[in-house]
Formats: sequence, structure tokens, C-alpha cells
Amino acid sequence: MPKLSVSATVPTILEEGVEKLDLSDGSSSDEDEGVQPHEKAIAAGQPNPAYCVRNIEQHAFGRREIEIAEQEMPGIMALRARAKDDKPLKDAKIVGCTHINAQTAVLIETLAALGATVRWAACNIYSTQNEVAAALAHAGYAIFAWRGESEEAFWWCIDQCCTPTATWTPNMILDDGGDATHLMLKKHAAAFKHIKGIVEESVTGVHRLYQLSKAGKLCVPAMNVNDSVTKTKFDNLYSCRESIIDALKRSTDLMFGGKQSVVCGYGEVGKGCCQALKALGCVVYVTEIDPICALQAAMDGFRVVKLNEVIRQVDIVITATGNKGVVTREHMERMKNGCVVCNMGHSNTEVDVHALRTPDLLWERVRSQVDHIIWPNGKRIVLLAEGRLANLCCSSLPSFVVSVTAATQALALIELYNAPHHRYKQADVYLLPKKMDEYVASLHLPTFDAHLTELTDEQAKYLGLNKVGPFKPNYYRY
Amino acid sequence: MPKLSVSATVPTILEEGVEKLDLSDGSSSDEDEGVQPHEKAIAAGQPNPAYCVRNIEQHAFGRREIEIAEQEMPGIMALRARAKDDKPLKDAKIVGCTHINAQTAVLIETLAALGATVRWAACNIYSTQNEVAAALAHAGYAIFAWRGESEEAFWWCIDQCCTPTATWTPNMILDDGGDATHLMLKKHAAAFKHIKGIVEESVTGVHRLYQLSKAGKLCVPAMNVNDSVTKTKFDNLYSCRESIIDALKRSTDLMFGGKQSVVCGYGEVGKGCCQALKALGCVVYVTEIDPICALQAAMDGFRVVKLNEVIRQVDIVITATGNKGVVTREHMERMKNGCVVCNMGHSNTEVDVHALRTPDLLWERVRSQVDHIIWPNGKRIVLLAEGRLANLCCSSLPSFVVSVTAATQALALIELYNAPHHRYKQADVYLLPKKMDEYVASLHLPTFDAHLTELTDEQAKYLGLNKVGPFKPNYYRY
Amino acid sequence: MPKLSVSATVPTILEEGVEKLDLSDGSSSDEDEGVQPHEKAIAAGQPNPAYCVRNIEQHAFGRREIEIAEQEMPGIMALRARAKDDKPLKDAKIVGCTHINAQTAVLIETLAALGATVRWAACNIYSTQNEVAAALAHAGYAIFAWRGESEEAFWWCIDQCCTPTATWTPNMILDDGGDATHLMLKKHAAAFKHIKGIVEESVTGVHRLYQLSKAGKLCVPAMNVNDSVTKTKFDNLYSCRESIIDALKRSTDLMFGGKQSVVCGYGEVGKGCCQALKALGCVVYVTEIDPICALQAAMDGFRVVKLNEVIRQVDIVITATGNKGVVTREHMERMKNGCVVCNMGHSNTEVDVHALRTPDLLWERVRSQVDHIIWPNGKRIVLLAEGRLANLCCSSLPSFVVSVTAATQALALIELYNAPHHRYKQADVYLLPKKMDEYVASLHLPTFDAHLTELTDEQAKYLGLNKVGPFKPNYYRY
Amino acid sequence: MPKLSVSATVPTILEEGVEKLDLSDGSSSDEDEGVQPHEKAIAAGQPNPAYCVRNIEQHAFGRREIEIAEQEMPGIMALRARAKDDKPLKDAKIVGCTHINAQTAVLIETLAALGATVRWAACNIYSTQNEVAAALAHAGYAIFAWRGESEEAFWWCIDQCCTPTATWTPNMILDDGGDATHLMLKKHAAAFKHIKGIVEESVTGVHRLYQLSKAGKLCVPAMNVNDSVTKTKFDNLYSCRESIIDALKRSTDLMFGGKQSVVCGYGEVGKGCCQALKALGCVVYVTEIDPICALQAAMDGFRVVKLNEVIRQVDIVITATGNKGVVTREHMERMKNGCVVCNMGHSNTEVDVHALRTPDLLWERVRSQVDHIIWPNGKRIVLLAEGRLANLCCSSLPSFVVSVTAATQALALIELYNAPHHRYKQADVYLLPKKMDEYVASLHLPTFDAHLTELTDEQAKYLGLNKVGPFKPNYYRY
Repeated sequence: MPKLSVSATVPTILEEGVEKLDLSDGSSSDEDEGVQPHEKAIAAGQPNPAYCVRNIEQHAFGRREIEIAEQEMPGIMALRARAKDDKPLKDAKIVGCTHINAQTAVLIETLAALGATVRWAACNIYSTQNEVAAALAHAGYAIFAWRGESEEAFWWCIDQCCTPTATWTPNMILDDGGDATHLMLKKHAAAFKHIKGIVEESVTGVHRLYQLSKAGKLCVPAMNVNDSVTKTKFDNLYSCRESIIDALKRSTDLMFGGKQSVVCGYGEVGKGCCQALKALGCVVYVTEIDPICALQAAMDGFRVVKLNEVIRQVDIVITATGNKGVVTREHMERMKNGCVVCNMGHSNTEVDVHALRTPDLLWERVRSQVDHIIWPNGKRIVLLAEGRLANLCCSSLPSFVVSVTAATQALALIELYNAPHHRYKQADVYLLPKKMDEYVASLHLPTFDAHLTELTDEQAKYLGLNKVGPFKPNYYRY
Repeated sequence: MPKLSVSATVPTILEEGVEKLDLSDGSSSDEDEGVQPHEKAIAAGQPNPAYCVRNIEQHAFGRREIEIAEQEMPGIMALRARAKDDKPLKDAKIVGCTHINAQTAVLIETLAALGATVRWAACNIYSTQNEVAAALAHAGYAIFAWRGESEEAFWWCIDQCCTPTATWTPNMILDDGGDATHLMLKKHAAAFKHIKGIVEESVTGVHRLYQLSKAGKLCVPAMNVNDSVTKTKFDNLYSCRESIIDALKRSTDLMFGGKQSVVCGYGEVGKGCCQALKALGCVVYVTEIDPICALQAAMDGFRVVKLNEVIRQVDIVITATGNKGVVTREHMERMKNGCVVCNMGHSNTEVDVHALRTPDLLWERVRSQVDHIIWPNGKRIVLLAEGRLANLCCSSLPSFVVSVTAATQALALIELYNAPHHRYKQADVYLLPKKMDEYVASLHLPTFDAHLTELTDEQAKYLGLNKVGPFKPNYYRY
Repeated sequence: MPKLSVSATVPTILEEGVEKLDLSDGSSSDEDEGVQPHEKAIAAGQPNPAYCVRNIEQHAFGRREIEIAEQEMPGIMALRARAKDDKPLKDAKIVGCTHINAQTAVLIETLAALGATVRWAACNIYSTQNEVAAALAHAGYAIFAWRGESEEAFWWCIDQCCTPTATWTPNMILDDGGDATHLMLKKHAAAFKHIKGIVEESVTGVHRLYQLSKAGKLCVPAMNVNDSVTKTKFDNLYSCRESIIDALKRSTDLMFGGKQSVVCGYGEVGKGCCQALKALGCVVYVTEIDPICALQAAMDGFRVVKLNEVIRQVDIVITATGNKGVVTREHMERMKNGCVVCNMGHSNTEVDVHALRTPDLLWERVRSQVDHIIWPNGKRIVLLAEGRLANLCCSSLPSFVVSVTAATQALALIELYNAPHHRYKQADVYLLPKKMDEYVASLHLPTFDAHLTELTDEQAKYLGLNKVGPFKPNYYRY
Repeated sequence: MPKLSVSATVPTILEEGVEKLDLSDGSSSDEDEGVQPHEKAIAAGQPNPAYCVRNIEQHAFGRREIEIAEQEMPGIMALRARAKDDKPLKDAKIVGCTHINAQTAVLIETLAALGATVRWAACNIYSTQNEVAAALAHAGYAIFAWRGESEEAFWWCIDQCCTPTATWTPNMILDDGGDATHLMLKKHAAAFKHIKGIVEESVTGVHRLYQLSKAGKLCVPAMNVNDSVTKTKFDNLYSCRESIIDALKRSTDLMFGGKQSVVCGYGEVGKGCCQALKALGCVVYVTEIDPICALQAAMDGFRVVKLNEVIRQVDIVITATGNKGVVTREHMERMKNGCVVCNMGHSNTEVDVHALRTPDLLWERVRSQVDHIIWPNGKRIVLLAEGRLANLCCSSLPSFVVSVTAATQALALIELYNAPHHRYKQADVYLLPKKMDEYVASLHLPTFDAHLTELTDEQAKYLGLNKVGPFKPNYYRY
């Protein structure tokens, strides 16, 4: 096996230690320690087991979680209901590599209902809900994942999905971070040729795909669902509008009314944060590098400042730039006592947490995901999630958001799997066709009892549109 | 001792069992079982101990909690700093009966700093933070309280504070619910004559005081701080604006965007809920009995409806009326699957929870403070906190709100203790003088770096106002 | 006749000249010049005419205006419909002294429909809509008013209403500013004894009444409708929330998005202004003298500052304090080029306009109600309505707001006229009984298709309320 | 000259009559009648005059208007200041065909300051501000435009700009609606070959360009500035957010609080309308054909309905679809008395006004731009601007919005004029390069005292961006 490195975020996480990553409800933390399940399997003479999870006995509890998630994921369930007779994924053999939780379980079982066979591994060593993995395995799915995988186990699990066998010739990849694609390409180059398409979910994975494409190494069409309209708006604007409030409340119990806050970055995430904070009575400042976004912030009623101008007076600092080193030690030196620092951007680089690991500063863990960094003079800064995504302070993403993402992924798989050969070039990365994006949205409208208006023939002709869409040019900004 | 009943909410709580009332951080739950501390004290031959708490050894942890609370309670700390030289409560002997937690500890220690001696008991058998009680006892305060008091212990504790001794002749009462006042009046009628004033915090306690006053049984002036301006606005409008979001998020993880909700009652609490829900993207309906509040709701952009008009379509039902039987079984029969029912009003009567305790319905506890009520056809209703205050789903009130309340209580004590005899009649219940209300507000302005404008002499003369207030007529509505 | 001065605002207006007070739609401006109508009447040997208006021939146009106003004043029309059979004002003889326009015409005709006889004069020399006065006169009402009355004519008109005759013994006064009350008291002291009650609308008039009461000169009960709940909220919060936007747009066409503005005063008017400006994308600062209002501003998300802190940077300055000298020449010296100065408070004293009438500054009238004050260095300040109420820049108050006021006035008249003798003391000024306030509100709910919930018997008992109200204690703040 | 038809909207306007199109401040309406200026010129033996305007004597008044506009157009003035030394339009010979008012005058004079020579005609027969045209002509610009041009005059004016002469070989076109391009192509095909680029502003003109491009008839590169980011957001979202309020207030004086309204279409314009109406207390419903926009509406808190579901209950109907026949006679039959109908979309087709011109309905003009349509039963519908753009009810577009548009146009001209030959293909229509869009935004930031953050070298490298932009991929949605 060639030398592979675990995806970028993992090493940091490992350094910081397991105790800080408690995402569970506490029910299974004890089992995370000790022997890795795949070692037991191997030791038991099962190098290629049908599945590998922490404890199959937990399946009933996991099944209940899945059933609850089904109720809250109307879009993907509607897709399952509508398409299950057509079986648009008949004979599809999908390698999946995503977080494994109740919500992705609903996706997995939907793909199966649409005709696909799947083998699935986790894209993150800590995020697997063991009970859900157990429920899926118990239902006959080839699941290879548990909470607290070792690095070696991480790749072993993915490899269980990618390796072709007599009965398993994967022809599709659903990836979240690019690890399955990466391993397939490096280790199973021959099998990779059977792949008809890759659907990639994450910023990082998409970035890797564009690089592969540019380098001429991508020999299958790939679909970037990370930038589809519904996903972007839901995962970013609408979801962050709520999760920033939730994350701050759960971790600090602070009161928003009258608090001064600065949001670094006025992209979709920053817009959502600003809107929510303003709505709950905060005074909000914005920093931006892009004059267009800065002008939007101004027109939306926010003072656009450099961070230094307000750093001494704010109660809350939120990063949402996707950049690195946005909040530096120097900034933190100037913050006032009790200032809360919270990252809503895509990585743990925005706040220079490393610069806080100096002997003069005392770290005090005050509750899960909340540290006080204490200066020699007694000043405390409240750091959430050690500068990683503050969403981690919330219990989970809203199922509704995940439903949109899952429906998008499923439709992207259907599209790539069924598209005529000429539609997508082998070496390119595509955005989801607008019509599919619109279809995802339409799947979710009934939840809101929203009633769509239909064009009359005359109106459609006047607008030069097909009555069933797509309704907008590609450059439309929503 | 005459027959006394524990205040109204307690029996219900007892029936429902301890496991449903877990308000703690989990650190001390084990100790709640077993022998009541006062029994040990009595058994040890200490019928009148200096204090009685669960475990004095926990004092250091409690002290840290108090210190953190001090940071977040700027108003009461400012009062402590400003008045500690004047000692306006010199020789005051205060019987206190409130919740006992880090925040009330800050109040207690402030009263002491202003010159008072105190003896303190809990107003609720479940709400005491044992560590904080330990810290106070360790610091020399006469604290009688622990989490999970028996009914007998509850009254024993209060009695330790009320009973006069050679060194203890109480002359002030700070009450929350009226139990200390009640016991003093019933059991220590002679000692009651030494009381110079009562400060009462709760709706229930205030109601009791007005009844006593009306019945001619109140022989001391009492101050109703429950209806002071700052307290009303902070505890209700501003606090509920945030806690409704927090309570719903923590308990259900639902997404607000696009959800239809109905808020029953458009008083301060209802206004706060509506404002927050609308701000986060809900469609909000309002029910009202009072045409003035209904008109306000309409002008604020909410459809005013009867509950039956929307009950089938809403995703969230919130009660904030102070009334009983607002949401009936009949309403709940019509709710759609997954509808969340949440009480933000003052008691557990708003939602007719009792009517849900029928054999045909299955109750499933899905997490702390969240039950699914399951109909025979599988329909689930999500009931928060069993119809009691949904705030219980949040970890605690924001310290800032408590700071306002605490400062108000302290100022009311100072006013009653120092007022010339003729200012307050013996048998009446008073609102806090406006100037005191304004003073409480001014104590909290520095937190927001808010800078007050001062009247010039000419302006004050023009307006007919004293330059230092009060600034408004008594009927001003804010 | 004793020496009487016209109410305070008029002389200022006269000094500033008629051309600046053009409130009309332009249709009748020509007639304002020339002979005063009452001189013609007197010259024609009619010292006590049945009415006196500018031009009775305009009645048809005025009638159409009244009919349109009727459509937009649902509350007062509903009152007319409900009470016209009861005739609660039977035999009432009302002296009216208010603005005379289509909306007050609806009030006047409603009072008549309820049984009253009226004689009516204008409370302001410029605000009469001549066409409406003509329509009323044509319909048989004793109207004495025209646009552009001389001071002498102003008092002559009021006197036509107050002077008792063989057929006219006034027994009620509806006043707006106190001029009819004043004249009655000074000139017709004997007739004044027949008055059963005074209803006063304005801040100034109410102030005068309290002074009379204090001085022991008030010998009839008076009702202060200026501070009734519905009126306060509608005339101030809700109405100003819209009129500030309208006034600024009509006069300056500025764009709100991104503009920095400061609102002086956070009472109901200031709250309305702040809410609207924030909603349309302004950055809003607040100044306050009252710590309670300041704290509300902070919790509502506004920085509370002293005017000097922001005066150099703001684009818009709004006064809403009711005070004098809030914006001084010194402040205006520091304003930036193009800064708009706008008064939403109660008088023309808030902005020190007088201090701008110096030789170094050039005044340039750029459109009706808008002046540029030009500094020697070319800096321009945009002053609206010469510092008088910026509402003057809008065409009129929304009919809906006037409907609330008119219904309140009518109900106050009914209450005072029908109350048993002991209910109201001769020398006191009263607020409208809450039940009447609630009734006014209920008259307006159908406009919004708002459906009130009714208490069950059990609920009413639980709350200790009558099922039909009143629903709140007097100190309730809404 | 080939047969040319005036652009689509004009004939409708002509049919409806001049009196309904009064856009002026009233100062020059008299002159609109009578002889067309170019006839005088021709009669005077000046077939090719240096300019042709209504009355050159009005230049001083026009100049003052231009100077005021300069103050309110910071972006275009900043561009003028920054680029006037570089003269990036040196030797450019620009045919301009736009509205002619104070704001476009600032653009014209900026183009001249940057080195260009211009000849300019109006793109609309009614929108010319005669005084401004006079000021420009007086300053030496070749302006051919007046208010109330005949169709023949309209084309004559454009032809004066397009026709090449010894000293005039146009090499750039700035068009708004496509008429100059059209005439050039049809009548001056030879001269057309000298054109280096076309900048087109309007939806209609852009549509024509795409058709020409598709048909292979476009032989110069064209730039579609209509879809540039800043223009889209400013002209639509931000501008309409304010103008919907302004238009409705000025025309109807209605109160927004509590009104029910429906907005047809949730594009940028619809979003702006909804946001403003909600903010001022309306209950807002949305209709949509596109599921993505519908989902956005839902998540933003609006009920998504079919028009028929709410048509009987709403007080305000707003169209913002760009479609035809959105509000039909049938809908209007069901509206309630007093319902206001207002078009914010792009044309006069959205409301089927034609269907209201039936004998049973009475039209009553109640003020400029406001008609009451009266049903036999007395029901009135209030129609704004006869179904044309309700913006016409406002006095003008905010200068700030126009500044953004003008700066965008100028930069597009600079880009096309200076671009190396290979950058733009001859037959294509381009969007403004993102960097130019960002530059337009940056020109306007100082107005808001907004301070942009600069990337460090390290950050730029991390993001893979140039420190000066562009900062976003082309598909970014803002």
C-alpha cells in the first residue's frame, strides 16, 4: 500500500487528544478505548468481513435513531418514495465514504432502495455513531466504521470498500473529503477505470478534484455538489444563521442583547451569522477583504471595519473567512476580559490557536468544547471548540439541512450514473445541473406547505422557458 | 408548628419523580439520594447548627462558580463597590429564601458587604447548587439548603432562618414565593413585628402579599419587585427572546427557518418569543384575549388568530399567557406529527398535560426535558419540560438578567430598611420607586459601554425634571 | 374679551412666513390671500352666522374626501354603526376645537350620528382643509374655520362655538391644545359651569389642564386622551416607525442602506424611528438621558452614545426627545457635508434652528420643507421642516392612526357625558378607563382580520378577570 | 433610412397619453407641447447642429442639478479623480444613448474627463430633463434630446450621434435599450466596423445583443453590464427594498403595520420588497414558479402560496416576476375593496391592465400615478402607475444606485476600449470582469466609511489569491 496521509484535519485532532472531541451523547464513550474492531476481525481470521463495526448489538438503538431522522428528512424520503419503482441506481455499486450517523444512514438506505449496492466507510475517525453503524450492518449493509478509528484502521475501512472482489466491482464513488477517491486512484488504479462518476461533498475534496483534473489525472467525470445552490444556501446561510446562536448559547449561556460582536468575513456563513446576531440585539461589525461583500455588509446595516479598530471593545469575535491567521495572538492580547472567540469558517486555521499555547497563558477547560485562556493579569478569553468549527458545540446539524445535502448527493449519483456518455467529459469537475438543483428544492417544499405556481403555456413562451424548468440562467445568483 | 403546605408547584414535581428534574451538571446527582443532611445534624446533637448543607467539602468548586458569576453580574458588583463604605444595610438582619446558586450567592455576599447579617434557605427543593451552598457556608454564612430537600427538611431550613434567637432578631425578609413570609407570620408572629419590610420576587409571592394586604393581615410594608420596570423587561421580553430559541434548539435541534409557529399570548414574554422566532425565519401566528395586545401583534406583523384556525398546520406551539387550559387535549388531537409544544408562561397549567396521561397515548422520554407523546396512529407530539417552563431546558438564566434582578432586590431592601417611617404604610404592597429602578438600570449600562447624556440646567428646567431623575411619570410604559 | 395669546407655536410660524407652511395639495392656495371670511360675514350684517368657511361651493370635493377617509377609518365607522341606535350622546352639545380635515370630519359626523349637536372651530390657523369645512357646513354643521385665519379670526371662530345662545348651551368640550377650554374659562365663566366634561387631545392641552387642576381652577372633570394606550402606541411607536421613513424619503430621496444615523431619545417615537431605520439598513446610534430607556436601546442592539461622540460621522440626525436645545449650533458645526437634520419630537425647540439664522450661513430652500444651510466653506446641512415636526414633510397622518385617535376621543366624550356624578371629580384630569381603551382597540381589529380569543368561564375565574375585560392592571406597560 | 420601430415600451406609452407620464418637477411641462426642436433647427437651415435641446437658456438650473448629483455620486466622482490623469478613454469617440438627467450628466462629463469625445441622445422620449440637457449643451457637449420627443425626432436624435462625419468616427457605443446599436447596425453598417465595443445597460438591450450574437450578426464584442454583481444587487435588492416603501407611501399614504401583502416573485426585486414590507410590520406572502427561490422564501419566513389562495384577503399585491399576466382580471375581481396593485417588475405586462379597460369599470385618477378602478358595486382597486414600474411614483432613483451603475458603465467602456484584441471575441456578449466589479464596489466604500481588510502575503498564498483580487470564482453567488 502506498504511503497515504490521513486528511489534513486529522493529525491536529490526534494531537489535541481524544477527550476534547466528545461528540457523542455519552452512551458509548467507554468503548472508544481499547482494541480496534478490525483487529479483532483479523485476529478472528476474517480479513474481509461483511462489515466491521464497534458493537452490532447496539443495532436497535441505532435503528430508532434512523427512524427519527427519517421523519425529519422529508426531501430524501420523498425521493425514495418517488424513485423506488424506477430504480434509477439499478446495478450501481457505490463506494461511500462520509460521516456515518443517523442522517447518512437515511441516504444509504435510500440509495439501496433506488437499486444500488453499497460499501461504506467513515470519512472521519471520530464522527461515526456506533449505534447507527450497527443498525446498518445488522440490516445487511457493508459498513466499515467506528468511533475512534486509528489511522491504520481508517484506511483499512476505506480499503474494504474500494477493493474489487468477485462480487464487487465498484462503479460509483460518493466521497466527502476525497479519501476514497484518493485511495482508489493510488491503490486500485485498474478498478478505478470502472468508475462512472464521483460525487464529492466537501470543500477539501472538491479542491483535490480540481487539482487532479488540472494535472490530467482525473479519468472520470466528477460532480462538485459542494457548490450547488441549495446546498450552499442551506449549509451556509440558513444553517449558520441558527447554529451560531445555538453554539454560543450552549457553550457560554451569554445573552446576545446589547453585546458587541465582530464577524470576520461576509460570505454566506458570515451573512447568516450577522443576520442572526443583529436580530437578537447584538451590535455587529464586519471585516472583509472583498469590496463587493464589504458593500453588501454596509448596505445591510453593518459597519465595515478592520479588526484592530474594534478588537478592544467587542464581546464576541466570529471568524467566517475560510482564511488562516485571521485572529492572531496580537488581536487576542487586546481583547477584553470575557471576550468569546468562535470559528464558523471551514477549518481550524482562522484563529491562531497555536499562538495561545505558550507558558504564560493558562488553559482551563470549563465545559465540553469551551476553554478559558487565562492571561497573567487574570484576563480570560473564552475559546470555543479550540478554534475548530463552533458547530461542534451544537449537538448536530439540523436534519433538514442534511436532507438537502443527501438529496443533492443522491441526485448527483443518479445523474452521473445515467447520463449519456457524451454529456460529461472524463476529466472534468461539474456543478450539479440546475434542473437537479431545482428538483432537490422541490422535494423539500412540502415540508413548509409551500405551493409552487405553475407557468401557463403563454407565460412560458413569453419567458422562453420550459414549464418545468430550469428557470434561471447559470449565472443567476439567487 | 401549624400545618403548612409546600408551595403549589412542589407536589406536582414530587409526583413526577426526581429523574425528570435533573437541573444539575451531573456532578452531584449521586448525593441527592440518601439521608437528609439536617437529620444527620439533629442526630449529631446539633438541632441549631450554624449552617446545614450537603457537603461542605465542595466549597472550593462552589467558590469558583461564584467568582465566574461575579464577572457576569456587573450591576450587582458595581452596587457592592459603590455602597460598601456607606454600609446602607448596617445592622440589617435579613431572612433570605430564594433559589441558591452562584448568582444568588453574589447577591448574598453583596448584602453582607453592605452591612447586613443574613440567614438563608432555599425556596425550591430542587434548585440548590450544593457546591455554592457549601462555599457560602464555608465563608461563614448561615446557609440551610441542599438539592433534593424533603418537604419536612424544606420547612426546617426556612425555620432555621426565621426563628429568633439571642443573637438573631430578623428585621428584613427577602422572599421568592412567599414561604418565609408565610412561615414567619404563622409561626413567629411575635418576631414578625420586628420586620421592617419584605421584598418579594415572584408572581406567586406577590399575589399572596396582595391577598394578605387585602385581608388586613399584612403588618409590614412589602415591596413587589416582580413588576419593576427593569426586571419585567429583562426577565420577560429580553430574556425570553433568547431563551425560547435556546430551549427549542437544545431540546429538539429543530431548524427555525420556514417553520410555522403559534404563540399564545402577546404580553412581554409572547412579544419576546414572537420577535425571536420571526427574526430566525419562522412564520408566526398569535392568539390573544386582550384587544390592545392583539392590535399590537397585528401592527408588529403577526396574524392574530384563534388557536383552532392554525392548530393543524403549525410546527411549534408556544404558550405565554399565564392562563390555564390554553392548549387542550382537543388541540393536541389536531396537531400534526412532530409538532413541538412548549410553555414559556408562568406555570405548568397552560398546556393540559394531565389530559395526555391516558392509556391510549404512549409517553417516550427522548432526552432530558423532552417527551414524545405517541398516538395510536404513530403521530408524535414533542412536549418540552412536561409543560412546565421551557426555560428549564436551558442550562440557566443568563447571569446578566439575574444581575438586574439581584440589584433590584438589594435596592428594594435598602429602600425599605432606610425609608422614613411615614413613607411606606404598614399594610401595603409597593412598587419600587422609579428612581431606584433607574438606578438599577444605570448600574448595568457600563457593561454595554453605553454613555448616558446629562440634562443641562436649562433643559431640566424646561422639562420640569430633576437632573438626576426620576425622568418619567409613573404611568410611563417604556 | 380678556387678552388672549394664540397658542405657542403660532407666532413662530407667522414670523417664518406663509410660504413655508404649504400643507395643501395646491388646489386652494390662491384663496388664502385676501379678505378673511368672517369679515365678509360681519360686513354682510351676519355677526352670528350659521357657519363661516372660505368657500361653501367646494363642498362636493370635500364630501368626496370625507367619503374616502370613511373607508380608511374602520374603527370610528364601526363605532358609528354600533352606537347610532343607542344615541349615547343624545342632547350633548359639544364645542369642538381641533384640526379640520377629512378625518376629523368623520369624527364630527360620528358624534352627530350618536346624538350630539356640535359647533366646531380650528385649533390651528393653517391646518384647515377648506373643502372639508365647506362640505361640513353644507351638510348643516356649524363650522367656523378656514386655512390661513388671522389671529383675530382664530379667536372669533372659537368664540362662535363657545358663546351660549338661546339654542346653544354647550355641555361638553373636545379640545386639541386647550384654546377652547381657555377661552370658555376666561370669557364665558358662567357658561363653563354647564360643561360636564372636557376631552383633551394634545400634550400642550393636557399640560395646561394639569396646571389648572393644580391651581384649583378646573371645575369640571377632564380626560387626558393623549396618554391612552392605543393612542400612545399608534401615534408614536407605530406611526413614527413609518413616517420617519416617509418624511426622509420624500424630502431628500436619500438611500437608507448603509447610512449612519443617530436618534436622540429612545421613547416611543425614538423606538419607532430606530426600528425602521435599522430595518432598512441604517447603522443607528441612540442618545438618552434616562438609564432605563438607554438600557432598552442597548438590549435592542443600538450603541448608546453622547451626541458628540458620533456627530462627525453620521449622515442623519433625528431628534425625538421632547426637550429643547438637543441639537445645537456647535453640533451642527461638526456635522459632515450633507448631513440631514430632522425633528420627530413634539416641538420646534429640539434643534436650535435660531442659532442657524446668522449672517455667515446661507439658507437655500431646495424644495418644500427642505432647506440647505450652507457654511462658508461650502458644507451643506439639510434641515427638514425648519426643525418643526418632520411629519409635515409627509402628506398626512395615516387615516388608520387618526381613526384610533378619533374613536378614543368619541369614547372619552361618551364616558364623561354618561358617567354617574361621583365617578369623576370636578377638578381632576383622568386617563381613559382601560375598558374604553380596550374597546377602541377592538373596534380596529377587524381591519386586520384579527380574531380575538375568548376566555372560558373557567379561565376567567382562574385569572380573576371579567370575560369582557378589562384584562390588565392599570400599571401594565404593554 | 430603413424602417425602424421605436423600442417596445414606447407605443404603449403613446397610446396612454402624455398626461399620465408626468415625470418632471413641473417646471417645464408647458414647453413639451408645440414644435419639436429639431424641426426648428432644420427650418433654420441647421440639419447637423452642434446640439439640439429644448431651451439652452435653462442651462444654469441644469448645472445646479448636476452639481448636486455630483455630491451624491461618490463612486463615479472618485473614478473621475483617480483616472483623469491617465485618460484611459483618450481618443475614444462614444455614441451614447441613455436617459438624460443630472445623474447621467455626471457620467457623460466623467467620460469626457477621462479623454473621450461623446455624442449623446435619449433612450426614452419622455425621460429627458431639459435643463440638464441644456447645461450639457451649454458646456459644449453634443446633446440631442428633449422631453416629449416625437418618434421621428427620437430617431433623428440618435442618428445625429451615429452618423460619421469628417470629425466624428464613433468607436464605442454606450447603449440603454439597444436603439443606438440597432440604428448603427442597420443604417451605418460601414461605420459600425470601427466600433471597438458596445456597453449595454438594459435587460431588453442585452436580450437583443444575445440574439444578434446567436444570429451571427454581432461583429463587435459587447458587454452586458446589466448582470454585473454590483448593479444587480444595487438596482434590485437594495434599491427596491427602499423604493417599494417609498412608492406605496407617496401614492397611497397607507400604513404598513398589520397589512397583508403578497409579493409575486422572489428574485432580487421580490426579496427586497419582502424584506422591507416585513420589516415595517406587514404580513407577507410570496408566489414563485422556481422551487429554489420558493425554498428561499420559506426559509426567510414567508408563506409560499398560489395567488388565488390569498387574493381575497390581501391589502397589497406586488408583482416582481418579469413575467406577463401574473395578476389577471380574474384575480382583481376577487380582491377586496381598497386593495393596492403595484408592479415592481420590469415591464407593464405583469398586471393585465388591459383587462381593466372595460365599460363596466370606472377609472378615477386620484392623484399622479394613482388610479382607482371602481367596480359596479363600489369596490375600488388602487392601481399604481397604470401597472408600469411603481418606481415612477418615487421622484427618482437614489443617486447612489445610479452612481454604481454609472461607474460600472464607465469601467466597461474603459475595459473594452483598452483590452488587447484577443481578450474579447468579436461576436460575443461578456459580463464585466469580476475585478472591474470589485473596483466599482471599492469606489463606493468610502461613502460608508467602510474599511477594507488587506490580505497578508501569507494569507493570499494560502487562499491562492492575488492580494488585489479578484477574490471570488465566477460562479460565486454573493
